[in-house]
Amino acid sequence: MIDPSLPHRRYNPLTDDWVVVSAGRTDRPWQGAQERPPVEERPSYDPDCYLCPGNVRATGARNPDYDRTFVFTNDFAALSPDVAEEETAPHPLLRAHTMPGTCRVLCFDPRHDLRLARMSPPAIRRVVDLWAEQVAELGRDWPWVQLFENHGEAMGASNLHPHGQVWASRVVPREATQEDRCQRAYRDAHGRPLLVDYADVEAAHGHRVVVATDRWLVLLPFWALWPFETLVVPRRHVTRLPDLDDVERDDLAVALSGLLSRYDDLFDHPFPYSMGWHGAPETEGDHAHWQLHAHFYPPLLRSAVVRKHMVGYEMLANPQRDLTPEDAARHLRSLPAERSGEPVG
Amino acid sequence: MIDPSLPHRRYNPLTDDWVVVSAGRTDRPWQGAQERPPVEERPSYDPDCYLCPGNVRATGARNPDYDRTFVFTNDFAALSPDVAEEETAPHPLLRAHTMPGTCRVLCFDPRHDLRLARMSPPAIRRVVDLWAEQVAELGRDWPWVQLFENHGEAMGASNLHPHGQVWASRVVPREATQEDRCQRAYRDAHGRPLLVDYADVEAAHGHRVVVATDRWLVLLPFWALWPFETLVVPRRHVTRLPDLDDVERDDLAVALSGLLSRYDDLFDHPFPYSMGWHGAPETEGDHAHWQLHAHFYPPLLRSAVVRKHMVGYEMLANPQRDLTPEDAARHLRSLPAERSGEPVG
Ligand SMILES: O=P(O)(O)O[C@H]1O[C@H](CO)[C@@H](O)[C@H](O)[C@H]1O
Ligand SMILES: O=P(O)(O)O[C@H]1O[C@H](CO)[C@@H](O)[C@H](O)[C@H]1O
Repeated sequence: MIDPSLPHRRYNPLTDDWVVVSAGRTDRPWQGAQERPPVEERPSYDPDCYLCPGNVRATGARNPDYDRTFVFTNDFAALSPDVAEEETAPHPLLRAHTMPGTCRVLCFDPRHDLRLARMSPPAIRRVVDLWAEQVAELGRDWPWVQLFENHGEAMGASNLHPHGQVWASRVVPREATQEDRCQRAYRDAHGRPLLVDYADVEAAHGHRVVVATDRWLVLLPFWALWPFETLVVPRRHVTRLPDLDDVERDDLAVALSGLLSRYDDLFDHPFPYSMGWHGAPETEGDHAHWQLHAHFYPPLLRSAVVRKHMVGYEMLANPQRDLTPEDAARHLRSLPAERSGEPVG
Repeated sequence: MIDPSLPHRRYNPLTDDWVVVSAGRTDRPWQGAQERPPVEERPSYDPDCYLCPGNVRATGARNPDYDRTFVFTNDFAALSPDVAEEETAPHPLLRAHTMPGTCRVLCFDPRHDLRLARMSPPAIRRVVDLWAEQVAELGRDWPWVQLFENHGEAMGASNLHPHGQVWASRVVPREATQEDRCQRAYRDAHGRPLLVDYADVEAAHGHRVVVATDRWLVLLPFWALWPFETLVVPRRHVTRLPDLDDVERDDLAVALSGLLSRYDDLFDHPFPYSMGWHGAPETEGDHAHWQLHAHFYPPLLRSAVVRKHMVGYEMLANPQRDLTPEDAARHLRSLPAERSGEPVG
């Protein structure tokens, strides 16, 4: 094995990409940007929040007085269902096509001051069910259903009320296309789904495992880009969220709660991230090569106020990371699974 | 042609990627992160800056009393030349190789408070020569020489002294590999270099042109990801920076000055960006399909304090933009080319 303290590149077999690993770069002096540390104290109801129960949104619509979860079509949707399919290419270098789709907002809880990390497993389980319902419902019309959450100001959340989003489209987007291709090629070559094999490899020695429950593994992938990026995979072969059984859903809530409380403990502050689910698209043909999984992409590197910047070299040449995935996993694993405060909701 | 106000996807023929364009999403309410606006007033010499002339760096080395530009090997280099070439793959899903290379820091000027946007064309010309020298010199040992600059706190610059970097490696990194493949395929199919053809198409109607000089074009590519992203290309077919002649170098300094002053005027504040150069790698074989170019990736979207966040949907599905490239180009073009303040340096 290569000495991981030396500069090296690792291959991402899920997307056919590479990441440069330069351990120890966090020793360099930092006179750069400091994030604003997140404010923990927020009211449980905010009259100016357009996601709180009973409030009026920018478009004039009023939210119901919901007491669990609440879903609505995004008032400023990036995709719209009323767009005819059309392609254009006046020149081979000027190719475009319309992109019909739909965007929804998923409120996770009526309480403005909550977030998944502070919700109890039963409350998280309600969010798991909501995710699965959305995939089942939107999957009937749209081949790709992208569930995601931007959590915290550092990840561009435009509102801090606990919520996620779903953007569904006819077209299968870039990341999913890559993962589809790579998973298919792996199964053709090796006879088993890529991520099922990979989870077995990681479970066997545990160096990069962060949380292990009966039904789920949370691990820091060998090829992680973000300092504390994680991959959440079921131990069983499951192609889509709605296929999870009752026990797996409960256990997922426990695994997520364990991951998120470790994230919060890492820098002793609410931990920002973007996360989302990838499952088999609703396209024709066989999807046995697909394994359901979630990615967590958290930006922080050194502290609650110093993040990893994916900038010059990363944008123009190759993504790069400043500590090894093994060190990051060890760090996360060493933290207590439960925060001192009682989970709520 | 597709109505550009409707959600659509555009193809990036240089990297074989796509971008989702959802015009008008900037109308949505923003209760999210605000960047710290950059501070214009900085001293011309900062005793705590490890790039100012005569100062001691973190490693104990002392900078010379330089009066133009100054280059040194990065004290916290992400790549190192003393690494033996080695590959490993204990499992098909765990592939890695060592990454020998070298990293340098390029100080653009002794004055701590300057930046390219405030430097005169003759001072920028010195930076152009420095870039070309570095590519010529490092290109003898390393097939890929990545010049880049992270400008401003928003782009993760860890020090505000005007400087760029160069990271050179044996391996040709991801972005360059994609551009090499796409440019080769285009030339095989159409007989001309992709970006030479593309610059002609854009020059012909000018809708996306921001700055046009005798020898250079600065344009907002049809497939731009970042709100005000630009591409800088010579009008002549040139494969690498050192191949630029004297007139082209002077003219490049003028074009860059025109672009950067427009960028500063856009939100009436110093404009952050990451930029870098792509030219043909020093690999075997023919490189006639390559056209030299620079990319500018600036993060701001709505104002000096509200940026575009490439987060949940972008990371998990597909990069997305919130205004059309044509509107962004029109906006930049409409700004005065010269700032009121005298350029210095
Ligand atoms: O080298 P610097 O300025 O310390 O660091 C900056 O540029 C590097 C190269 O793009 C990135 O890897 C770092 O994340 C960024 O903060
Ligand atoms: O939809 P929001 O929360 O207003 O906006 C956020 O998520 C979107 C989807 O990832 C991004 O395109 C925006 O840049 C980001 O600010």
